[in-house]
Amino acid sequence: MGEFDLIDRFFKRPVTRNVLGIGDDCALLAPAPGMQLAVSSDMLVEGRHFLSTVDPEKLGHKALAVNLSDLAACGAKPLAFTLALSMQHADPQWLEPFSRGLLALADAHACELVGGDTTRGPLNICITVFGEVPQGQAILRSGAKAGDDIYVSGNVGDARVALEVFRGTLSLGEAAFHVARARMETPTPRVELGQSLRGIASAAIDVSDGLLGDLRHVLRASGVGATIETASCAGLMSAASRTALDAQRQLDYVLAGGDDYELVFTAPASRRDAVMRASRDTGTPVTRIGRIESGAGLQLLDAQGQPFDRGYTSFDHFA
Amino acid sequence: MGEFDLIDRFFKRPVTRNVLGIGDDCALLAPAPGMQLAVSSDMLVEGRHFLSTVDPEKLGHKALAVNLSDLAACGAKPLAFTLALSMQHADPQWLEPFSRGLLALADAHACELVGGDTTRGPLNICITVFGEVPQGQAILRSGAKAGDDIYVSGNVGDARVALEVFRGTLSLGEAAFHVARARMETPTPRVELGQSLRGIASAAIDVSDGLLGDLRHVLRASGVGATIETASCAGLMSAASRTALDAQRQLDYVLAGGDDYELVFTAPASRRDAVMRASRDTGTPVTRIGRIESGAGLQLLDAQGQPFDRGYTSFDHFA
Repeated sequence: MGEFDLIDRFFKRPVTRNVLGIGDDCALLAPAPGMQLAVSSDMLVEGRHFLSTVDPEKLGHKALAVNLSDLAACGAKPLAFTLALSMQHADPQWLEPFSRGLLALADAHACELVGGDTTRGPLNICITVFGEVPQGQAILRSGAKAGDDIYVSGNVGDARVALEVFRGTLSLGEAAFHVARARMETPTPRVELGQSLRGIASAAIDVSDGLLGDLRHVLRASGVGATIETASCAGLMSAASRTALDAQRQLDYVLAGGDDYELVFTAPASRRDAVMRASRDTGTPVTRIGRIESGAGLQLLDAQGQPFDRGYTSFDHFA
Repeated sequence: MGEFDLIDRFFKRPVTRNVLGIGDDCALLAPAPGMQLAVSSDMLVEGRHFLSTVDPEKLGHKALAVNLSDLAACGAKPLAFTLALSMQHADPQWLEPFSRGLLALADAHACELVGGDTTRGPLNICITVFGEVPQGQAILRSGAKAGDDIYVSGNVGDARVALEVFRGTLSLGEAAFHVARARMETPTPRVELGQSLRGIASAAIDVSDGLLGDLRHVLRASGVGATIETASCAGLMSAASRTALDAQRQLDYVLAGGDDYELVFTAPASRRDAVMRASRDTGTPVTRIGRIESGAGLQLLDAQGQPFDRGYTSFDHFA
């Protein structure tokens, strides 16, 4: 199968929300008047971001999910994406499920594949995603203010639990592993929640490198500090995963596990009702875990309100 | 050097033409009213698109040049780009010249680096580029009409000559190799010419896989055929390269060499003066090489006007 055949067979589809899709030198997008275009790129490399044994359909889902998660963190509505794909062979047995998983998630968000590139080489998936956000309404990392509440969406920690099972450092019953593995392999980008938080959240980021590590980016960009009540974080991991871990390791994976693709965001205490409404309206659980402080630094409090330090660091590809 | 340090040191710069650059979950672009956004992605893999021994500064230039060339083919004005970079080590000795070459070309076109990703893995450079084009004025592959002239910009064939020298199938004097190697390593995207051809050219594509192969994409998209007067193509290769090749091999590399990043475009015969003016105004040589025909197929004519066939095919990563 040649390069253009594989594009036609697995990736080329008519566009309706965008002006021009696959098949020319460029795609053409036309954001509606008054809209800004939010853009994000993520590159997934075999052996680093996914295991070589992963189900290609799930990999297709995840490759787009991690990009949609960036749009969600800005409150943008998905519009289109490009896919650049390097692979050693043009294998229909792999491409068919990969494109199926990718395009199913794309369809769920009306996010059209408009272009990209295919080439031979070590397996590498690079997606650039585009979303619309009304002018001046993007939720940035830099807007957190002292006194704001800190929230996290959904579930964090389970993706790391699954990774540790694959690594052999942890064992888990079949049912519990099924739950954790789904969190690692098919994360749910919080696209609807992100849009609902426009005008409510003061700052947001998506959790990819670890909850505290990513929160630190918000603190740095906003010039503030934070206090985290770790007791309120206990329920963020699924009950099934918790059964296999002591309390310390539970907390470690919740606060610094990584690969979660949830949103951590801040909002003024006066907007608690609005946050809960956004959570309810979008069917996305949201947990309040702490508060933004005027002084620098990130302080962890135990169940008794006493400060402690575990030296959590964020994932860094080159550290 | 960590991931965020290397981004800060080599890639993060303030943006002026775009709303938000590197440092948040998304970049924000705001195309001017009435403008559409042209988008293109190209992925470059070590050993396939460039030699491992290439000067990183030249590689930085080329990685962006091949993307700008796609904007040029659509007549779009460069606006911004994202860079996703996978590499085995965060080596400042490589990153410094790479970013220098990349950003020098970006600055020459006021094209701002607004975001991206860095990760560890086999060397892979994925750039997605954004340009503006007035609504409805993008030059597409599908607009060629019977009777239109066919033109090609600048020089084609030299990049392939340089590749063959590296492959050891050809030897060339030092001065001639210098010229050809520059064509392979630091191609000039025809950004100004592309914009000047808006409203003049009926169709365009950039030459990356070979002149005839890429022209065939235009013919297919436009539902037309073409006649090429190969005698008019002789001068497309540099005089220095021609000295080392017999006439047949010269023609082979001109028509099917690849990696040229010139524009092949069509325009009504009534617009010859306008084409020449665009060529002169942008300082870009343009050569008329044939004509669009109503019947399907691509016919080559020799210097005596006799048809011949050499079975030229286009480069295909998976054929």
